[in-house]
Order: sequence, then structure tokens, then C-alpha cells
Amino acid sequence: MQINILAGGPTELWPDNLFEEPGLWIGADRGAWRLYQHGMAMMMAVGDFDSLAASELATLQAHLQANEIIHVQAEKDETDTELALRYAQEQKPDQIKVFGATGGRVDHLLSNLWLMADPVFHDIVEKTTFIDRLNTVSYVQPGEKTVRKVPHTKYLGFMPINDVADFHIIDAKYPLALTENVAKMWSSNEFKTDVVHISLKTGIVMVTQSRD
Amino acid sequence: MQINILAGGPTELWPDNLFEEPGLWIGADRGAWRLYQHGMAMMMAVGDFDSLAASELATLQAHLQANEIIHVQAEKDETDTELALRYAQEQKPDQIKVFGATGGRVDHLLSNLWLMADPVFHDIVEKTTFIDRLNTVSYVQPGEKTVRKVPHTKYLGFMPINDVADFHIIDAKYPLALTENVAKMWSSNEFKTDVVHISLKTGIVMVTQSRD
Repeated sequence: MQINILAGGPTELWPDNLFEEPGLWIGADRGAWRLYQHGMAMMMAVGDFDSLAASELATLQAHLQANEIIHVQAEKDETDTELALRYAQEQKPDQIKVFGATGGRVDHLLSNLWLMADPVFHDIVEKTTFIDRLNTVSYVQPGEKTVRKVPHTKYLGFMPINDVADFHIIDAKYPLALTENVAKMWSSNEFKTDVVHISLKTGIVMVTQSRD
Repeated sequence: MQINILAGGPTELWPDNLFEEPGLWIGADRGAWRLYQHGMAMMMAVGDFDSLAASELATLQAHLQANEIIHVQAEKDETDTELALRYAQEQKPDQIKVFGATGGRVDHLLSNLWLMADPVFHDIVEKTTFIDRLNTVSYVQPGEKTVRKVPHTKYLGFMPINDVADFHIIDAKYPLALTENVAKMWSSNEFKTDVVHISLKTGIVMVTQSRD
């Protein structure tokens, strides 16, 4: 099962054909309103929707109620996207795709991209992908791992998002061998074939695949 | 002296009145072309400009030559923005503002925002700010520090970009006291007055000020 989360980021960063994604949908914050506007069924909505106009809010709340859609508000220590991910996680999905989580506020973007560093998400780290028009962001846990090329992307980037030991990029255009953790985005790498092999001993490495 | 760097990110994320900034300009990558297009004098240009069309490239190169503007290309281990920052650093400025460094490719954004984690930039960490339409990103080194509110922003975020010990947010809307490093963006905080006090013992904390 695939679960898709739509967060409230700028719509111009949505990939083409967003709503043709298979799977079930969760709306986070303004993302719930946008799912409603696009006639998409959602399994859950999260947020206080304080960015919606009064009439939008009333329409959305009536829709959630009429369709018996679960609706929760995040506590102050959680973000809407975090709570959406926790609910998705409980459904034991094979894959989670998060859209609308980039662009706009830098604190939102970084908050979203670093969620996978929270130990509570341990079992979905390698199942979760953040996707926008130009970028696909995935994550790798310790071990010897294979990264597959996402179609229509060109550039490959790797970044330790917490304490990563013995990080190796084995067969990309620019190999890398690090024993100590370095807090740095290794950007503008490229695939030589359709797969790249990497390894790490501890921590989590973020993998970005992008196009201009 | 203030030095401004214009990188090649999306122009729609530029703040209003960008070219009214005081100080000297450096163009990084497509940013050099945009400075030329806007009739802005630049002290240095960096990049291979491979994203420019042949005619644009010829025009820019003639302009750089005619005006005796320093032009260097980054090595494969450096990004254009990194090299621009190093050149800015050598001029011993009071302040460095970086524009055009957000939006578009996530690997570029993260590469830019994490440059301040490189020890080579130690002496400009607290002088450097990344700015776009919605965000101002600055950095704090160890000590007891004061963060001043940037006009027209609402939200305040804090994120350790390397190994930060004893991080305290003292008098913002949501205080925080951490002894161990946590790889997390603490987003959606707010000022109570026009200043917030924070302290840290080691590492570097990124400070984001944003609006919706």
C-alpha cells in the first residue's frame, strides 16, 4: 500500500499529474483543502487550518464531517506534516510519498526534511520520499545500499542528517570515502549507470535526485 | 563594508528592491549574468556559466573582460557560491548577504545553507545571511547571543547545523533547553519582543526568520 501526504507548500512546485499517484491520501494543513478542491478522497486531515478563509474552513469542516474523515490538530511540539507521517506510519504502508513539503518557508522545509532523523520514524526511513517538481528526496539507513535513478533527474546529492560514520559513495561519478561525520551536502554528483552503491555504519544519509 | 552575492536561484524568490542593497556585488553562476542584465557593477564573477546560451555567454565574457572583472571557475569540490563566499571573506567585510541561493534544487539549497558548517568560514559565520522573499537565515556561534527581529517576518526557527551542545532558547514564545545535540529544525517559534536570547556551548545554530 502507498500513502501520499499533501502538505501546504506552493502548488507551483507540485509534480505534473500529482493526483494520478496510486494509493491513499492524507491532507496536512492547507494540503487538506487542496485535496478537497481537487475532488480527492482523503483518509485523514491534520491541521488547525488557520490559513483558510472562514468560508473555506466551514466548507472543509462540513466535508470532513460528511465523509467521516479523521481530523486531528497537531500539538505545539509537532508539525502537521509530522502528525500526518505518524498516522501514515501506523497504517504499515510499503511506501510514503510527501508532496507540498518544499518551497516557501525555509523552517518548514528543513523541519520536513529532518523528520526522518527522529528515532520514532525508524521503520519508515527508507520508505519515505519527499517529492516536488525538481527534486526527489529519499533516505538511507546503515548498511550497504543501492540507490536507483529516478527518471528525468540528472543530479545526485548526499547529506548526513545526523551522526553518520564510515560513509562511502562507491560508484557514482564522484566517489567519496569519509570515516568521520561531516555536516555537509555533497551536491552535484551524478549516476554513471542507473544505480549507485553507498554504505554507512551509523546514522541516516539523505539522498537528493534533482534536475535544473 | 557590505558584500552581496547573487547566486543563480529562481528570480521570483528575490526580495523586493534587491538591487537597492548597499555594498559591492559578486555574481555566482547565473547570478553574474543577472547582475549584468540589471546593469549592476560586480567585483567578481564565478562559474562556468554552462547554463547560459552561447550568445549570453559571449556577451557576459566580453563584459567581464572589458570591465576587468575577476572571473574564476570553481573546482569540482567547490560550488560557485562557496567560492564566491571565500572571495568575499578575503575582503574582510562587516556583513555578507547572499541572494538567489534558495529555491529550485534542494541539493543546492542545502549545500548553500550548510556552508557555514565548514571551519574555513569560521570568521564570517555571524556576518553571513541568506535572504529570499520569505526568509532570512543567519547563524550563531557559541556564547550567549542576541537575535534581533527582522522586520516583516513572523516565524522564528532554530536548527543545529553540526554538533551543538547545551543549546538554550531563553526568551522566545517557546523556550528550549537541550543538553545533547538533536538533529532537528525547531520551527514556528516567535519573538515576544524585538530580541530573543539564546546560548550554546559548541557548534553552530542556524536561525531562520520567515513569513508566510
